[in-house]
This record gives sequence, C-alpha cells and structure tokens, in this order.
Amino acid sequence: MKITVQKYGGSSVADADRIKNVARRVIKSQQPGEGLVVVVSAMGDTTDELISLSQQINPEPSEREMDQLISTGEQISSALLAMAIEHNGAKAVSLTGNQVGIQTDDSHTKARIFKIDSRKMIEELEGGRIVVVAGFQGINIKKDVTTLGRGGSDTTAVALAAVLNADSCEIYTDVDGVYTADPRVVPDAVKIEKICYDEMLELASLGTKVIQNRAVEFAKKFNVVLHVRSSFNERPGTLVIEEVEGMSMEKVVIRGVSLNQEEAKLTITLVPDKPGIAARIFKNIAENNINVDMIIQNVSAQGFTDVSFTVPRPELAKTSALLEKIAGEIEAGKVNVEEKIAKVSIVGVGMKSHPGVAATMFETLAREKINIMMISTSEIKISCVVRSEDGERAARSLHQAFELDREEE
Amino acid sequence: MKITVQKYGGSSVADADRIKNVARRVIKSQQPGEGLVVVVSAMGDTTDELISLSQQINPEPSEREMDQLISTGEQISSALLAMAIEHNGAKAVSLTGNQVGIQTDDSHTKARIFKIDSRKMIEELEGGRIVVVAGFQGINIKKDVTTLGRGGSDTTAVALAAVLNADSCEIYTDVDGVYTADPRVVPDAVKIEKICYDEMLELASLGTKVIQNRAVEFAKKFNVVLHVRSSFNERPGTLVIEEVEGMSMEKVVIRGVSLNQEEAKLTITLVPDKPGIAARIFKNIAENNINVDMIIQNVSAQGFTDVSFTVPRPELAKTSALLEKIAGEIEAGKVNVEEKIAKVSIVGVGMKSHPGVAATMFETLAREKINIMMISTSEIKISCVVRSEDGERAARSLHQAFELDREEE
Repeated sequence: MKITVQKYGGSSVADADRIKNVARRVIKSQQPGEGLVVVVSAMGDTTDELISLSQQINPEPSEREMDQLISTGEQISSALLAMAIEHNGAKAVSLTGNQVGIQTDDSHTKARIFKIDSRKMIEELEGGRIVVVAGFQGINIKKDVTTLGRGGSDTTAVALAAVLNADSCEIYTDVDGVYTADPRVVPDAVKIEKICYDEMLELASLGTKVIQNRAVEFAKKFNVVLHVRSSFNERPGTLVIEEVEGMSMEKVVIRGVSLNQEEAKLTITLVPDKPGIAARIFKNIAENNINVDMIIQNVSAQGFTDVSFTVPRPELAKTSALLEKIAGEIEAGKVNVEEKIAKVSIVGVGMKSHPGVAATMFETLAREKINIMMISTSEIKISCVVRSEDGERAARSLHQAFELDREEE
Repeated sequence: MKITVQKYGGSSVADADRIKNVARRVIKSQQPGEGLVVVVSAMGDTTDELISLSQQINPEPSEREMDQLISTGEQISSALLAMAIEHNGAKAVSLTGNQVGIQTDDSHTKARIFKIDSRKMIEELEGGRIVVVAGFQGINIKKDVTTLGRGGSDTTAVALAAVLNADSCEIYTDVDGVYTADPRVVPDAVKIEKICYDEMLELASLGTKVIQNRAVEFAKKFNVVLHVRSSFNERPGTLVIEEVEGMSMEKVVIRGVSLNQEEAKLTITLVPDKPGIAARIFKNIAENNINVDMIIQNVSAQGFTDVSFTVPRPELAKTSALLEKIAGEIEAGKVNVEEKIAKVSIVGVGMKSHPGVAATMFETLAREKINIMMISTSEIKISCVVRSEDGERAARSLHQAFELDREEE
C-alpha cells in the first residue's frame, strides 16, 4: 500500500475552524487505495497553558508527571481532527503514542524513539481509515507516557514515515517552505525548491526554525523525503532530499543564509595551555547539560591561551557561574561575558568544491565594516559571530553577495 | 497492607488552589505503612468544555473519539494532583485507566468495568507512593479508551476499593453528606449518619445526586463501605453500609424524602386491552434508548385502558413523537403530555415492616390538598407524581410527617 504521512503543527490546528480546514485538506489529499497517516501537534498554546498550570502547582514537577500532563494536548487535537474528518464523510481513527506502540527510552521530556509497531496503523489503514496520530509522545517500557521534546511531532511524523515505508512525509506549517534567508530580515529571500538533508540540518541548527533537526536526522537516516509546506495555501513548498538533482555546482554554491541572535558568548582568559585543560572545562559544562555551540581557542602565547564559546542565551547565567568556579580551579584569568551576539552563517554542499567561498564571506563582511569575533567552519557551512547590531546587515549583504535572490535557476 | 481509597470530584479540583488543598488533605490522611489510592474527576468544567469544543467540529462525533477526547480531563487533573502531592514532600504517581489496567466492555461513553489489574497499583503503593488514578476511564480489549458515563469516577473509586480490598472508600464532594431531603427545599433536613446501600440506591435514583447509583451498586455487591463527605471541611459525612446497626425499627421508618422535578409524563389513551400491547409499546421505546421510569396502567374499561409513564424531560420530544407513531399502529386514542411534573418519594428499609407508611404518606398529601397523579411502590420506597408546583410543599410536609428532622436519635 502506498502511504503518505502528513504532519500539522500547532498553529494549523489552533482552533475549531482550523481543525476543520485541516480535515478538508486531509480528505482532499486522500487517494483511493492508498494509506494516509496524519500526525498533529497540540492546539496552539495548549502545551504552554498546561505547563503554566503545572507551574502554579509545583515549580519543579517530576518529568514523569510533566509528560503525563502535556501529552494530553496532542491526544485532544488528534481526537478532534478525527471527529472533523468523520464529519466530512471520511473514516478516521485517532491514536495516542501508546495506542500506536511508539516505544521510547526512559528520558522523560526528551525521549528517543527506539521502536514503532506498525501493525495497528496498517490494520486501520487497511480498514480504509485515515489514521490520526498524536505527535510528540510515546511510552517507555513501564508504559509511562514520554514526550520527545519541543517540536517532537516532526520527529513522530518522520519516524512513522520511515517505519511505514511511506512515499513522502509532508510537514505542514505556517510558512511556505524553507527560504534562502529569513524574509523578515532579508526581503529578497526566495523559497528553496529542493535542499539536501545536510544543508537543512545546518540551516536548522543555525536558527532556521521550520522543522526540528532531529526530524531531519531521522529523515536522512531512513531516506524519507520531506516536503515542507504551508497548511494555509496550496503552493508547493520545499523538498528535503538526499541529493539535489540537477544542481549546478557552478551556479548554486550556497543554499541559504542563517541568522541566529539567541546566543551569548563567554571567554575565559589566561588559561594555562596544557593538555587536559579544555577537556576539563567542557566536560564540566556538559555535565551540567549546557549545550555549547561554537568553541574557539586562540593560539598559545607564553603558555596561556584564551578560550571562547557560545551558548544559548537562557543558559548564560548558569554557564557564567560555572565558568567562574572552573576558572578558580584551573587558575585561569577572568571570565568575560558578551550577552548579545549574532551568528551569521552560510550553508551549502556546493562550497565543498569551491575554495573561494570563505574568502568571499569575509570580504563581504569587511566591505560592510562588520567586525568578525569568531569563525567556525564545517564541510558545508561557515559561521561568523558578529556584534548583535550588525547581524541583520551581515545576513542581507551575504544573501546578495552569493546571489541567493536568483536561486532556483 | 491496609488500603484506603479516596475520590475527589470535579469541584474539589477545579483550579490550582483547590488541587493544592486536596494534596494537603491527602498527605494528612496518609498513614505510615498503609496504602492510599486517590481517584480524581476532571477539573471543574473541563469535560463540558471539551464536549462543547467537539460540538463545534462535529455535532455527532463517534463515541470512540469522544472517549479519546474527554478522558484527557482526568489525565490532566490526576497528573496535576500528583505534582501537588510531590510538591508537599510526599511521593506520588498518576495513572490513567490504561496504566492501571481497568478493562471495560466496548460500550463507549457508558462502559462497564469487567476486570481491574491491581498489580501496578500494589507495586506503586509498596514503593511508598500515593497512587493518583484518573477516574471515569478504562480501556477495552482493543486498547481504545472508554469512559464510564457521567459520574463514573465514583464507580472507578468503588471498583478500585473492591479489587484492592480497601478498608474504606471515601467519596469527597461539595456537600457534607447525604441529607434526609434536599436542604434547599426542606430547610429542616438533617445529615444522615448511616444509611444502607438499598436506601442510598433508591434516594440516588429518585434524585438525590450525591453519588452515582452504579457506584453504590458496586459497593453493595463487593461490600465496600462508602464514606460520603465534604472536601472543604473536616466534618464526618454519611456512611453507606450494608446494615445500619442499632437502627430502631420502631423509630426510624423512613430514611429520607426525595424530590425529582426533572421528569415528564406521557399518557396514551384508549389502548386496546389485549395481551402484548404494553410489551409492544415499551419494547419500541426501549429500542430507542429511552429510559422509562414509572409506568401505570389503569384497570380496563370496555376493552380499553390508559397507559401513563414518566421519562427524563430531555427525552420528552423524542418519546412523544415515537408514541404518536405507536398509537397509530396499535389503533389507540391520543397521546397526552404533561411536561412538568414532580415526583416525591419516601425511602427507608424500615417501611417493609410498617404497614401504615403508605397511608400516612397519602393522608399527609391529602391534608395539604395535593393531588396524586401516579403512585409507584417498592419494598423500600413509595413515589407519588404530583403537579410540579406542589412538589416542594409535598417534600416538606412528608419530611415533617415522618419526623425526619429528628433523625439520628
């Protein structure tokens, strides 16, 4: 059976009217003899409202109870969508993560899927029913409800597409697809027709929030074709695939420009330059569950070095306190904090074979008189940390320099 | 292990503050080495809100999806109560009907429990945790969520008490216990200290809405002692037990007066008085899921009879239409409808051995110049249908005539 998986985000099912709208879209896309599985997030702000209610009762609830609580959001939206589909004359059944049989590990609030039982879904699909699955949730071995972390419904959709060997996984959202840059920052940004997994991963981790990174990793691993598109119009969106066919290596070097203004920078100065010191710093930070992004260590001068790194801004206070402690222990200098920075990045598999890309990026920023504070490169992306106030201008100038407004031939 | 089951209704957990209040009560009542299971309803109007949301989407949703939807209400309140208990320093775990293992039949929205697995609860209790169970719900053999009908949390509590062989089942509500009559109608009404199952059943089915009848039936069947009391104060409530010890047969004949003003009366006149006709009428009505209460058939005159019966008022239009159709088929006369009636009843096991009770009832009503339209008796109750406007006066005069204001010696 040919199977399609669709996923609708919280804004697409935010109220009764939008749920009815999704039901109409779903039915319209149903093909005779084919299977359709629809994954939904919780309605609009439901999850936040439940969290806020729990905060009034217990500011530090156990994660087990938190999952038990917030997983109801998707159970509600999935049941309502099934009702809406039935009201329009098609057959549907809603299933929770437990009812599908989405087995996860024990990490409440950020669980990892390790097994999905496809039998129940197949049985329902063969009965001619549209299967509406509550996203974001699973169960652990003890039958406790687990959740997959923010944006986990994307992961649910891709994982179901993988296990069902679906032809495609359509991610419906409130934007038209993936753009060469954030259109609010770069008005010339254009929608990308096709992008490969690695580029999508880099863009997503650099701040382009269309689809959860874990979902893209899953898609790459199981070779699931993703179609990111809008639930409010019929326009085609962006295909996320393994290799972008017919991509001219000559023309398309850079796929997109990403701007992240949600990080902060810390520097620890006069670090004794001996083996094991960096490990000690970052092991300590990792043990506190702080997600470090860019790390730069300057060359050593007279046996000392400076180490800089960036973290998500909400983690700054915690990291800073921790770093002060470490600095004392390793007899380093002081800890400098830069609360607001901007990280501007260019992404594209094409740059692998184009040596001049980095130079073009630095020249462009120099021409704009934008000072580069940190640089980090990978096979398919280059990121520069600049002053917060320079971020948007940097993104626009790079978008133009790499001719992204002329993308898609 | 000595185990107590407590049940808190929707008004007791209506908001964050009330949930915290229940958490404090629960912890206070926890005894070292003993097990405590707490069953909760959904917060305040949650269930009604979910139903209203579903109505906007599909006025006739499938019952399967309805159960999937509304069962989230109790999942939310149970998780929040577990968090509140943990916040106060005790250990707790919330469990859905599925997680407990409450097996029901397939009758969505009014499922019957047929098996409860006590192992998970016992395991948690032995781990020193207060077990908070989402009331009102179970699962059928297909793992679909089922619900037990309105007030089903009472049934959950009693069923858990039965399977756990609990010492008592405390039903916390927003009233102090069971009264000899509705205090809003009869100001002299007093709280009943002890009442037996049969009396409670009659009172509940006659309109005294403190506890769901099915829960009392369950309690009677498994000999579970119920303690109906308020969640807002510490006063003892009403014990519902098998036999009320030390009850003076001489003094206490009648336990309570019940007034039901939510029924309507229908009469079909000139019904041919031959075998099978009554069966035909009521079979037809039963097949349409209409719950008939009192039925009166007058003695036959010249081969014809009148048949009157009462139904819940919301069923009146449906029943009336159906009855018109039947009247035509069986060649009866016309259908008369009385939209507003009052049914006043007296209840007490003592009346079995007191022949004068019915006479006292009729005399009392006659003295008050209240016309009796229908009479129905059982071993332990007598009900009279009177005009709607006479209902409250009838209840007050009977309460006085049977000296119920002097109850509990």
